[in-house]
Amino acid sequence: MLNRVRSAVAHLVSSGGAAPPRPKSPDSPSATSESQAAAPGAPKSPPAKPGTASGSGSGAPAKTPEARASFSRPTFLQLSPRGLRRADDHAGRVVQSPPDTGRRLPWSTGYAEVINAGKSRHNEDQACCEVVYVDSRRRSVTGAPREASQSQGFCFYYWGLFDGHAGGGAAEMASRLLHRHIQEQLKDLVDILQDPLPPPLCLPSTPGSPSYSNTSHLVSPQSCWSSQKEVTHESLVIGAIENAFQLMDEQMAQERRGYQVDGGCCALVVVYLLGKVYVANAGDSRAIIVRNGEVIPMSREFTPETERQRLQLLGFLKPELLGSEFTHLEFPRRVQPKELGQRMLYRDQNMTGWAYKKIELEDLRFPLVCGEGKKARVMATIGVTRGLGDHNLKVCSSTLPIKPFLSCFPEVQVYDLTQYEHCPDDVLVLGTDGLWDVTNDSEVATTVDRVLSAYEPNDPSRYTALAQALVLGARGTPRDRGWRLPNNKLGSGDDISVFVIPLGGPGNYS
Amino acid sequence: MLNRVRSAVAHLVSSGGAAPPRPKSPDSPSATSESQAAAPGAPKSPPAKPGTASGSGSGAPAKTPEARASFSRPTFLQLSPRGLRRADDHAGRVVQSPPDTGRRLPWSTGYAEVINAGKSRHNEDQACCEVVYVDSRRRSVTGAPREASQSQGFCFYYWGLFDGHAGGGAAEMASRLLHRHIQEQLKDLVDILQDPLPPPLCLPSTPGSPSYSNTSHLVSPQSCWSSQKEVTHESLVIGAIENAFQLMDEQMAQERRGYQVDGGCCALVVVYLLGKVYVANAGDSRAIIVRNGEVIPMSREFTPETERQRLQLLGFLKPELLGSEFTHLEFPRRVQPKELGQRMLYRDQNMTGWAYKKIELEDLRFPLVCGEGKKARVMATIGVTRGLGDHNLKVCSSTLPIKPFLSCFPEVQVYDLTQYEHCPDDVLVLGTDGLWDVTNDSEVATTVDRVLSAYEPNDPSRYTALAQALVLGARGTPRDRGWRLPNNKLGSGDDISVFVIPLGGPGNYS
Repeated sequence: MLNRVRSAVAHLVSSGGAAPPRPKSPDSPSATSESQAAAPGAPKSPPAKPGTASGSGSGAPAKTPEARASFSRPTFLQLSPRGLRRADDHAGRVVQSPPDTGRRLPWSTGYAEVINAGKSRHNEDQACCEVVYVDSRRRSVTGAPREASQSQGFCFYYWGLFDGHAGGGAAEMASRLLHRHIQEQLKDLVDILQDPLPPPLCLPSTPGSPSYSNTSHLVSPQSCWSSQKEVTHESLVIGAIENAFQLMDEQMAQERRGYQVDGGCCALVVVYLLGKVYVANAGDSRAIIVRNGEVIPMSREFTPETERQRLQLLGFLKPELLGSEFTHLEFPRRVQPKELGQRMLYRDQNMTGWAYKKIELEDLRFPLVCGEGKKARVMATIGVTRGLGDHNLKVCSSTLPIKPFLSCFPEVQVYDLTQYEHCPDDVLVLGTDGLWDVTNDSEVATTVDRVLSAYEPNDPSRYTALAQALVLGARGTPRDRGWRLPNNKLGSGDDISVFVIPLGGPGNYS
Repeated sequence: MLNRVRSAVAHLVSSGGAAPPRPKSPDSPSATSESQAAAPGAPKSPPAKPGTASGSGSGAPAKTPEARASFSRPTFLQLSPRGLRRADDHAGRVVQSPPDTGRRLPWSTGYAEVINAGKSRHNEDQACCEVVYVDSRRRSVTGAPREASQSQGFCFYYWGLFDGHAGGGAAEMASRLLHRHIQEQLKDLVDILQDPLPPPLCLPSTPGSPSYSNTSHLVSPQSCWSSQKEVTHESLVIGAIENAFQLMDEQMAQERRGYQVDGGCCALVVVYLLGKVYVANAGDSRAIIVRNGEVIPMSREFTPETERQRLQLLGFLKPELLGSEFTHLEFPRRVQPKELGQRMLYRDQNMTGWAYKKIELEDLRFPLVCGEGKKARVMATIGVTRGLGDHNLKVCSSTLPIKPFLSCFPEVQVYDLTQYEHCPDDVLVLGTDGLWDVTNDSEVATTVDRVLSAYEPNDPSRYTALAQALVLGARGTPRDRGWRLPNNKLGSGDDISVFVIPLGGPGNYS
């Protein structure tokens, strides 16, 4: 099934969002006909249809791969050519937000971003905010009217932050397509998720064939096990998001030669669907909810430090992935030849503590995981361990691929929006690591309180004002030959992107 | 180094705790000469020296392997032959505790146990409570007096619960020897742990050679990395405990042919050392602190459900471990041949959610992980995924070994006893799964309050009374053709063992 869905999305991409040819059999899923939101623009494709104010680049003019790779910003910023140049200025570092006029982002979402201070030529962050309609796969195939008992399709709301590295191509591709993969994955689930009964164990073999009915569950639960494991609706949405990330990554792998999918990106994605907020994170961006002044963490960072044991286990089980250059053991610093025979602190894939071991020849290899904090690296190269892309990433001056150690799978956390009555000051804040490198959860909560209390609760511009304040606060001002914060510490020289999503208030669910 | 230490412990075992021959070189560690507590009795060995009231089996009479395998209880219970027979009675299920006369367990620790209701012929739980002295390895090797600047050895307090399965041999061996392995691992650390400076990066090549001095750190921290990772004293103790578990498991593997090390066991171990409590858990026993009526979880259970993704990843990376009989994919129940071609719910090693996949021929294999709750199994065989032993465990009616999927490594949690002033009602409760199957944290906290408040705070028998109440409460009474709790639910038919360790009060640190 995964392959089929990938083909459908790939078709959608290569056709530039135009409707695919009429399927020859009910087997073939249609990827576009029920989409209300604009289809994404595709690399090297003609312009997608315009008029999607909230789309990320989907209404952008067609660009050659070179132009695309050079610089683009989310369409919802509505930047003029002059604005684009301003946004690309490392010296001025002007904070960008959607214009205060015209159509707002869904839920009155706030957004702000700023380019780095010279770390890379262009801003490698990308962002996307969309409302995506999902119709049952079946209807588009048969063309027949829905049975009375079958439910309508549904919308999901979608926000994505993509923090690129080693080029902007992966982040841009993900910002244009990841929500489409999620949409594809959800098509099978349209009826199931709106049916109060537990999900059926089996579906008919053909997605889109009309025989699904929840009354049967198709196969009786009796078998060699005494009972059948219960699967929740929520876990189906989580599985759909997880598989969408994997398919997005596979698509990048397949199309990296045809299109300039350079580098990789962290992906932090929020899906609101049927009353629940799903926060999916693969990388070192972070999401928190600030509710009634309190912080609720909604993601964990995936770095060489937090994923050390996973990485070491893989190196231990598949030593061929380490070449002759790396050891899966960790040492507090690199072992030097003169230390052969001494006993040095180490830990392996099973240990959280440290012990001493006698240094042998192969311990002189470079450790798979080394360094601390922001300097921690896998194979001395990359500082994040989950994300999309990086299929071409090799160890410096070597042919050893790093991708096998990186995971494209997000961790998904769920927040039930119906379990709590939210006020207009309750927000979900998403930020790339440029924000979190120089601030923390409680400082962000303080800024939330300070900025939102300066605006009327029903003023929809307050959330963009908050996003701007967060980005400005993390960027600092250009004093003393560097961007500095009020406490004279260095501000973030990285790209910074922030979404502020209100969880209650007038803008919601609209 | 690990091999050397294992040899030392093996020697200790095979010599029955007698002092080893004078080492021929400073390389050979001595495992016994600085031990204050009694050396453990060894399988097939002559009786260990008597007089260790708190030892677990260490003062037990010599038994043939057959006798040992048949039945033994912790020595600190001081059971007479008649008492031993009573403790082995599945019908009566008399709760056993140390006698209220004579020498108490360290810290006035309370203990109680009861045999199962017929699940296995004998009680397969074992327990150990010891005070273990650790002297520097160096002294015992050189025999020379310590330099003035060098510190004295130290004691650690030790409690262990071992929940055996498929035989009692592994649990008994672990109860006799695991603390000796911990002692061995700590010998290198005697000076380091008592030195306020950070642990040295390197030690001289020979454990026991006299050149360790913390001033040098031997190698300068400058190298290709900008800084050297800081390693804490605490993490050295954790590493020592982790390696001790591994060495214990290796010893079981090596000696399983010579001695009757049948089955395997979960191990829940507490080490108190230099102000901190280390709780190490490998299996499905559980430890909680009840402090001022509040529950602080001190362990997590390791079961096919909690370790699903680790198990599936191993099966995915090493499919040869699955033979032709198992699939690493999980399904809500076993797939049936007639479901070929349908799409069924599944999840793989990367997913926490569920999705649908088309059933192919190899999905008809049995899932590596199946079932729910107490019925969850790895390879349809075993319900715990960490512990010691099980080296002979095979899939039923197959030669496929299960051990590669089991981990002997504990998760270690640390509690700093000096950070809080504890009252006599604050306790650490350890219980095998027989306790937790029928009760929960908050019910245990209620029982702690109820029982302890009925005794004077300085009455040292209150902790054993509490352990007895917990075991009685989980066992129930023999009504209605089964052991039943007051709410008429079934009581635990499993072996039940409980330690109650007071964290404050008169009995402490003595």
